[in-house]
Amino acid sequence: MGRAIIAGAGALPGLLLQAGPAHIVRLAGVESDPQDAPDILARFERFGVLFADLRAAGVEELAFAGALSRPAFDPSLMDPETMALMPRVAGAMAQGDDALLRVIATIFEEQGFRVVGALDLRPDLAAAGSISGEASEAQTRDAARARAVLDALGPLDVGQGAVAAKGQVIGIETLQGTDAMLRFVGMSLPGSGGVLVKRPKPGQDLRMDTPVIGPATVMKAAEAGLSGIEIAAETVLILDRGAVETACEASGIALWAAP
Amino acid sequence: MGRAIIAGAGALPGLLLQAGPAHIVRLAGVESDPQDAPDILARFERFGVLFADLRAAGVEELAFAGALSRPAFDPSLMDPETMALMPRVAGAMAQGDDALLRVIATIFEEQGFRVVGALDLRPDLAAAGSISGEASEAQTRDAARARAVLDALGPLDVGQGAVAAKGQVIGIETLQGTDAMLRFVGMSLPGSGGVLVKRPKPGQDLRMDTPVIGPATVMKAAEAGLSGIEIAAETVLILDRGAVETACEASGIALWAAP
Repeated sequence: MGRAIIAGAGALPGLLLQAGPAHIVRLAGVESDPQDAPDILARFERFGVLFADLRAAGVEELAFAGALSRPAFDPSLMDPETMALMPRVAGAMAQGDDALLRVIATIFEEQGFRVVGALDLRPDLAAAGSISGEASEAQTRDAARARAVLDALGPLDVGQGAVAAKGQVIGIETLQGTDAMLRFVGMSLPGSGGVLVKRPKPGQDLRMDTPVIGPATVMKAAEAGLSGIEIAAETVLILDRGAVETACEASGIALWAAP
Repeated sequence: MGRAIIAGAGALPGLLLQAGPAHIVRLAGVESDPQDAPDILARFERFGVLFADLRAAGVEELAFAGALSRPAFDPSLMDPETMALMPRVAGAMAQGDDALLRVIATIFEEQGFRVVGALDLRPDLAAAGSISGEASEAQTRDAARARAVLDALGPLDVGQGAVAAKGQVIGIETLQGTDAMLRFVGMSLPGSGGVLVKRPKPGQDLRMDTPVIGPATVMKAAEAGLSGIEIAAETVLILDRGAVETACEASGIALWAAP
């Protein structure tokens, strides 16, 4: 069974490649690291060409991995298949990232490809319980507060992260992403000792936008003056667990996975 | 009937003074502008002294005006009345600002004072409909998106403001306040053309924490690259409407009040 990984930025495409051989699909305008795998070059404007290239390579299963930015789109390059898909894609884009990704998954499934998630290929990268250190009672309370914010915002497709400190909400992730939120928290309330909670949005298609943390997340949380990170158990993937644990120990960040 | 205004920072205490003569209560550690009114000096540690001073001044009605920060609290200064109130105050503080303010209002009411809001004294400072310019269809849609976020977060006592641009949520107010959120939006997504929505939290005691905007809010929204501001009609108070309209015209910000 042939597999292809639609590769975005970060370490995730390489980690999925370790689950078995696969083609790497590189989209023009999307940053992706070189990987030791056969390349399929693609464009957002040419879905028809991509479908044909995937079939020619014997691909039956597709995994999306890493952040797919929204690159510049050149309408003059569109092939007929893409033109036919445009109304659905444009309509979904207006509704937000979740809707867009769900439509993209459906489009590939209609073409006969099986769409799997990073979690399906690498369940070993998820975790449960303590990962580094132990959460204090105050940290557990702050995590519950941040989780309540994410739960409330869930249906609105806003973000996957929030920060609380001493019972107060001090950061809520928006379009700009987790890193931008952490910089805001660090600048506006240095040394807060808060807890970052990172969870998928309820109802999001986990296959298409798997939440991940890595050593850089831990370092940025530490720089922002946080004391802990809670991730969703069995769901958020840890990129490079050894380096994550080292970063936690070096910075005094407690890291745990909660149901 | 004697009235006192518990004065925090900003222009609101002075505007309430225009509604009729009142004593100005200045709390140690809380910033407040000088006003042409008799002063009552008070401390958070000495509720008992404040109750007595208010009665001695013939005060029957109290209005809270302007931001009350949480100043340093020196337990060694506490009078017996404050000690007796501490369990209730501390319990409420742990639950957030809304709960704390509600308990403080109740405490003064139990002492026989009538607690009124800025909106009760100056309903003329609220507005409905267009205030400056006209909201475009896109701005109206962005405002609806930001409002949905505030509605969802309402029960959680988080913030009174959110920003959306091109259908995406790009700022959600947290403990750090509206100005910090606007700085974040301007730094992370300059020139977004987004819309700031400012509304009270559903269920908050409007008497105790009246949402306000002023010329500075408009200037900060403009500096953050926004194109519009929507406030809650008949609820959010406009400090210095003439200067607000001038700032809107100078910066091209549309300002309107929605139900």
